Amino acid sequence: MDRQVQPGMVAVAAEEGVRQRLLEAAIELFARKGYAATSVQEIVAACGVTKPVLYYYFGSKEGLFAEIMQEALRLFEAAIAGALSGEGSVRGRITRLLDAVFALILDNLELTRLAHALYFGPRQDGPVFDLEVFHERLQSIVRDLVAQGQASGELRSGEPEMVAMALLGALDIAEGIALCHPDWGFGREQLGKVLNVIFEGALASRRRG
Amino acid sequence: MDRQVQPGMVAVAAEEGVRQRLLEAAIELFARKGYAATSVQEIVAACGVTKPVLYYYFGSKEGLFAEIMQEALRLFEAAIAGALSGEGSVRGRITRLLDAVFALILDNLELTRLAHALYFGPRQDGPVFDLEVFHERLQSIVRDLVAQGQASGELRSGEPEMVAMALLGALDIAEGIALCHPDWGFGREQLGKVLNVIFEGALASRRRG
Repeated sequence: MDRQVQPGMVAVAAEEGVRQRLLEAAIELFARKGYAATSVQEIVAACGVTKPVLYYYFGSKEGLFAEIMQEALRLFEAAIAGALSGEGSVRGRITRLLDAVFALILDNLELTRLAHALYFGPRQDGPVFDLEVFHERLQSIVRDLVAQGQASGELRSGEPEMVAMALLGALDIAEGIALCHPDWGFGREQLGKVLNVIFEGALASRRRG
Repeated sequence: MDRQVQPGMVAVAAEEGVRQRLLEAAIELFARKGYAATSVQEIVAACGVTKPVLYYYFGSKEGLFAEIMQEALRLFEAAIAGALSGEGSVRGRITRLLDAVFALILDNLELTRLAHALYFGPRQDGPVFDLEVFHERLQSIVRDLVAQGQASGELRSGEPEMVAMALLGALDIAEGIALCHPDWGFGREQLGKVLNVIFEGALASRRRG
């Protein structure tokens, strides 16, 4: 709310990394304690700064949260764009895409945890982290790629939606394991293996529909 | 905590369904408001009974929660046992199993929502609903079935774990859609189609490893 520059703010604003540290501290606290239960005081204390610094960068706790969400979307879009820019088979492009998104999740586990907590948690506990935006974007890209692969004959004909769900299910479960069982060693290589199963099929000999 | 029978309790205890209604009201309130934020008073008010009735059946809010968890486990084990009792191919048995678990989820959406909220939510918000118990049980059954299918030659050889993940990913995403997009009409039939994709493979022609 208080966006005025106050005494000492210029030096603070110039300090590299304060903004990023505030974002990271907030993500960690929101994920662990809940959004509503986390005070601005706790966030700034975790970074060794005072409240006006947070207000300077983000305006308010709500503003800080909105920025977390925006930042996540930017990273997500960049990962997608990078993965889709190359050539190759539909299988290769889908694999690259899901690998890039999973790499992003692994690099931002606390943010992923926060997104899940807010999405599945009690509604009054804070703003909705709109996981939908991410899900729907990814789902429509994968579905379109599958439809392309079916049209070109690379993939079997069928409902693109169902193939997309199978592939996205692999990312879903990989994400769940990364959040809850980081000790299992389920990483990008393992996701690749699961995707191979889906592309090639679990059956020894294929019996069609 | 107060397990003594009080005046009027015998009649209440005899009333069919009060216990079940208390469980259902608690699940709904815990899922919507959070476990910590829900009072015993709110739960009993939702059922038109008084606090001693809840204490009579469950001892405390914690006791009620433990009973919700126990009940869920009983239903889950019954669904698994039913699905595994039949004969048939590994593909058929895995499909029946995941279909039965998904049917149970669809019949208990509020409970599923509560489980997710407690599992992914801030830890101090209440007891942990031990989703792990369910996940690990299902995972080990599916992995064993896959290993059996590989040994018999029905399934391609490979790491049973990765095939199990692909199959369980389908259930994961089906559950997510049931929770967040009940309007999409993604039901048991659709889960069956996704499982078909995984068994038969998305590729038009199979290129091995």
